[in-house]
Amino acid sequence: MPSSPIRKLVPYAEQARQQGKKVYHLNIGQPDIETPQEVFNAMRNIHFTVLEYSHSAGIESFRRKLAEYYKKYDIDINYTDLLITTGGSEAITFGMMATLDQGDEIIIPEPFYANYNGFAMAAGVVIKPITSHIENGFALPPIMEFEKLITAKTKAILICNPNNPTGYLYSKEELEQLKEIVIEHDLFLFADEVYRDFCYDGKQHFSVLNMSGLEDHAIVIDSVSKRFSMCGARVGNIISRNKKVLETVLKFAQARLSPPTFGQIASEAALDVSAEYFVSVKSEYISRRNLMVETLNNIPGVFCPNPGGAFYTIARLPIDDSDRFCQWLLESFSYQNQTVMLAPATGFYATKGLGLDEVRMAYVINNSEMKKAFECLTLALRDYPGKKD
Amino acid sequence: MPSSPIRKLVPYAEQARQQGKKVYHLNIGQPDIETPQEVFNAMRNIHFTVLEYSHSAGIESFRRKLAEYYKKYDIDINYTDLLITTGGSEAITFGMMATLDQGDEIIIPEPFYANYNGFAMAAGVVIKPITSHIENGFALPPIMEFEKLITAKTKAILICNPNNPTGYLYSKEELEQLKEIVIEHDLFLFADEVYRDFCYDGKQHFSVLNMSGLEDHAIVIDSVSKRFSMCGARVGNIISRNKKVLETVLKFAQARLSPPTFGQIASEAALDVSAEYFVSVKSEYISRRNLMVETLNNIPGVFCPNPGGAFYTIARLPIDDSDRFCQWLLESFSYQNQTVMLAPATGFYATKGLGLDEVRMAYVINNSEMKKAFECLTLALRDYPGKKD
Repeated sequence: MPSSPIRKLVPYAEQARQQGKKVYHLNIGQPDIETPQEVFNAMRNIHFTVLEYSHSAGIESFRRKLAEYYKKYDIDINYTDLLITTGGSEAITFGMMATLDQGDEIIIPEPFYANYNGFAMAAGVVIKPITSHIENGFALPPIMEFEKLITAKTKAILICNPNNPTGYLYSKEELEQLKEIVIEHDLFLFADEVYRDFCYDGKQHFSVLNMSGLEDHAIVIDSVSKRFSMCGARVGNIISRNKKVLETVLKFAQARLSPPTFGQIASEAALDVSAEYFVSVKSEYISRRNLMVETLNNIPGVFCPNPGGAFYTIARLPIDDSDRFCQWLLESFSYQNQTVMLAPATGFYATKGLGLDEVRMAYVINNSEMKKAFECLTLALRDYPGKKD
Repeated sequence: MPSSPIRKLVPYAEQARQQGKKVYHLNIGQPDIETPQEVFNAMRNIHFTVLEYSHSAGIESFRRKLAEYYKKYDIDINYTDLLITTGGSEAITFGMMATLDQGDEIIIPEPFYANYNGFAMAAGVVIKPITSHIENGFALPPIMEFEKLITAKTKAILICNPNNPTGYLYSKEELEQLKEIVIEHDLFLFADEVYRDFCYDGKQHFSVLNMSGLEDHAIVIDSVSKRFSMCGARVGNIISRNKKVLETVLKFAQARLSPPTFGQIASEAALDVSAEYFVSVKSEYISRRNLMVETLNNIPGVFCPNPGGAFYTIARLPIDDSDRFCQWLLESFSYQNQTVMLAPATGFYATKGLGLDEVRMAYVINNSEMKKAFECLTLALRDYPGKKD
């Protein structure tokens, strides 16, 4: 299994820290937003005496409450249509293992979340990328491009909506286009919707679970990690109205016994947070995004689309090689003993040679820190030996 | 993925409960032993505000403390020789994925823990069973039998010590025999040692980590689940002095981001339990084992070896078919509105046709309940239509 470009940077970040440099982390999706107090209260209020395995499909009361949560989004599912997993990671892996055979192909618009490579590898599945482009904010590529890639081995399409790493929010119209091709070729449509709660500018998230005719095709991946800023809980879920798919997923779930009990209790409690929590968290992210997009587009030679969701953006920088630039930032650059860590976009493209002048940034640090990070970036882009005009 | 014999019984157990029948569960390894208070105290004393991902290899302070725990067993490892996983399940899966290629073979003495099938399937690995026998308590089969199975595709041997499902504790001499063949054929030796703390009758557990010459071969699977009766934490670990193996495991670990944070905090705290905790837990298990072995061997036609570790035994019953018998117990048998759930041993053998007159029992319920369970079993064996003389 090859190392991703971002993991290759870790030792350089470590070294920078050891040199006493302050590193601003725009490279990872670990938000600094406080986890709701309900989570910690639930841990304080545990009254059982044996920390047992839960049901392999998850704690039933949690599954039921989660089904209620989806009703708020007009997604009408029963708790038996979903199964709790150890993070969204396991949900995707199980979903692939349950629907695709060794060597089957799954089409994913690139740039895509780099860990999909690991999940596909674990499931023995081949990823076929379709390139989306920064010029139109990484909108869904034309359906014709999907058609071109479909072979007898194509079994599924996977989208992440809103998207990590681009922040793009797919419209209902785009999903309708996908629906047609999915039905025509009898494919599964995986939708990683873990950023569902983070949609901006009045835009609404539209779930593949709300498309009639896709009942047997749609498989949704979800997680509490980003929603409640509780990545460490390692609790996700998979949703499908296709009974056969969920039955097969359950078999894999039984083999690993159960998802983490503490994390499930915490996640169930988190569902009690008030609507104001999301209002305040969203307004914080919007303010950060606005700062990021505005600042980046004011740096000469930089282009950054305005993402409609999640908390990432991919920006184009005037550089020769994003891997080299990101390493240089950690290894050689310093401004007032500070630097910034970014994710080279090369790691999000399956097609070799793409993403060389792009980086992903996550707006998961506060505005005052982000301003300092952008000061560093501005100066770095002035001084970087591999800069382009 | 096929359903295991024990999972097929679940709906019958559900039905029995719905009929108001009390079901004694000797079928699963979910102990009733109380989780140490240290675990719940740690959850009460959490003071951070963001539930973050941990390091993919686990929380460093926990890894360091775990390395200290092994020193008590005279196992001298550094914390960098171990990596925290989401349960022992993930440790085995990652271990296999890191060392075996698609289609490679791993030799496992049968009967073996049924979930190994799922882990091997996930890793694309083929299990080659070697039959051990109830007559000698399921001791290690002769090394000659291993030799016979070794092909160019054989890459590893896996043992579980003390053993689930047999309770057999491998001796140092048996392990020395395995060492020879492992070195001769340059294999990996996986040892699932999650029951290490449960060895009885003055016997000591001997770890493959303590065999010189096996530094590059030995891979140990461990877990806090049974040790501290905290199965729901979903925290395990993998240990190897082979740096290359651990580096590859780390890549898989990075793809799934991190093991559960709450579970790790709880597990680190559990390491503080006093030595008396184990003394008392072990004495409870010994008392249960003694009751089980004595009672079973007093039932006409039943034979049960005296297991030296873990909390399982495989017993031979005078029956035609253990799957049928276990289903009949739930579906058709009742004594004072009670019955007992057992695990058909067929699920622990890879060789078809074996285990038909054997069942696995876990002594994870207290003696007063176990006595009632055995009352049921005694009468059931008298009345079962498929009984054999």
